Amino acid sequence: MSKNFTVTILGSSSAIPTRDRFPTSQLVSCYSRHYLLDCGEGTQIQLRKYKISFQRIDRIFISHLHADHFLGLPGLLSTMDLLGRKSEIHIHVFEELNIFMTGFLQATASIWSFPVHIHPIPKKQDLVLFENNHIQISTFPVKHAVPCNGFLVKEKPRHPNIKKEIIDHYHPTIEQIHKIKNGDDLVLSDGKKLANADITIPPAPPRSYAFVTDTVYTESILPFITGVDLLYHESTFTEDMKARAKSTMHSTAKEAAEMAMKAQVKKLMIGHYSVRYDNLELVLNEAKTVFENTICSYEGLEVEV
Amino acid sequence: MSKNFTVTILGSSSAIPTRDRFPTSQLVSCYSRHYLLDCGEGTQIQLRKYKISFQRIDRIFISHLHADHFLGLPGLLSTMDLLGRKSEIHIHVFEELNIFMTGFLQATASIWSFPVHIHPIPKKQDLVLFENNHIQISTFPVKHAVPCNGFLVKEKPRHPNIKKEIIDHYHPTIEQIHKIKNGDDLVLSDGKKLANADITIPPAPPRSYAFVTDTVYTESILPFITGVDLLYHESTFTEDMKARAKSTMHSTAKEAAEMAMKAQVKKLMIGHYSVRYDNLELVLNEAKTVFENTICSYEGLEVEV
Repeated sequence: MSKNFTVTILGSSSAIPTRDRFPTSQLVSCYSRHYLLDCGEGTQIQLRKYKISFQRIDRIFISHLHADHFLGLPGLLSTMDLLGRKSEIHIHVFEELNIFMTGFLQATASIWSFPVHIHPIPKKQDLVLFENNHIQISTFPVKHAVPCNGFLVKEKPRHPNIKKEIIDHYHPTIEQIHKIKNGDDLVLSDGKKLANADITIPPAPPRSYAFVTDTVYTESILPFITGVDLLYHESTFTEDMKARAKSTMHSTAKEAAEMAMKAQVKKLMIGHYSVRYDNLELVLNEAKTVFENTICSYEGLEVEV
Repeated sequence: MSKNFTVTILGSSSAIPTRDRFPTSQLVSCYSRHYLLDCGEGTQIQLRKYKISFQRIDRIFISHLHADHFLGLPGLLSTMDLLGRKSEIHIHVFEELNIFMTGFLQATASIWSFPVHIHPIPKKQDLVLFENNHIQISTFPVKHAVPCNGFLVKEKPRHPNIKKEIIDHYHPTIEQIHKIKNGDDLVLSDGKKLANADITIPPAPPRSYAFVTDTVYTESILPFITGVDLLYHESTFTEDMKARAKSTMHSTAKEAAEMAMKAQVKKLMIGHYSVRYDNLELVLNEAKTVFENTICSYEGLEVEV
């Protein structure tokens, strides 16, 4: 079981794609499972390009119903179908997606041969959408021209590791190992106790990734993103286009960086670039002036959270 | 006014795209106008990649309603909208596309700011869909698992050219030039007549392009494609997969070549390759054994008709 927690960028453009940039889509890999955040047109092509298994994706989260954030869904599902998928897939999205998907299935007179569950995200509220033993994925509202949500992928606290020399010396049973990992001391056959703190190494702190697009600068998201290891915050424009950013309900690179600073995140990743930025140096530099630990997202980039 | 008549391949894959191949889409350029034949997912990305002006496309023809042949439409139209398009666009397609497009517009609560006319193609019949001064585009049924049509783009006969020495020597008026181009002789001021055949060079014969995908081998298309300069015929499989070609209602490379031979076309272009053909040499060689003047379609290829 891989403990990797990575984000792979499948699309970094805003609404109008460029010759190098696809519409928004990101793959979060965590404990051997894949989760898609947004699914812009061409997502299936990008997945093929980066040799990512379609069949390990079983949960998709869509931020909002602008064309560049969900148009890849019917193609991706159709290909999964052609590849013989049988296992169910879950899509978390505003309920209006049903109209689009029903229209697609009716127009093509087709049905999927695997269960596709569409879970409606209620508007204007935060909510835990999914959890398993390892992670929890929740959603929170952001501020855009249409209802729009961000997502928070949070690792659950891991168990401590038992020191190697303890294992080698005392050969604890499976049951004892389980108990120690859950906080118990080790009781030896002579009744002597080894304190939990002395025989374990604390686990790495849980990691977290916040995905915030499309939105104007809004501090209403601070309660959800504060302290995350990696924040993806859209930066459609630079400061000279601030008026346009405001009118189209998008953010500038500087605003994304200010949010990263306010939220005390460890690292900022920017993206959703307007078609006007052929070279991203300008966008990156603007953000770095405010928040040094900033990186640019680009197609194919894999970031460890 | 360019007299070029070219076909640019935007997508050459069958239903499942690969890292290099997009779903079906072709751009036909003729007398400075662009026509799209099919519009698979990612068509707008390919148009950007090959620097093709979106705004010169005003007519789109869709062969059938399998996902890989039309899913690029809503994204392309959305981008045209964002780019400020005002001029109308015409889509020739089976009427069921309306259900899909309506679903998209309802789900996104959006409307196009330019007129989008969907012209239903009647099923199981051939028909002229469009003509202007230079070309005629017609459609004819092919044989697939669902109703499916091919397209024929045919140049209209051009006027003869007047020999340069005649222009230089006699300086005919605009009116005289017009008459000569329409077959009249040139009457000089002394009443002497110069015969049309002596003062003109006959125009190049009209060129034609036939687009045939997705289909099993069917000679029912011969009346429509016979003698074309360039035939695009799908070749999803090779002969060793003939049973699968039949059951999925597709053709093999050999069958495409046999059709090219029977139809006495000048050149054959194959495509719509199954994902199993990473290297196309096998597919091309199979076709060439039957019909030597065969080429493989691939993304970015521009062919002069």
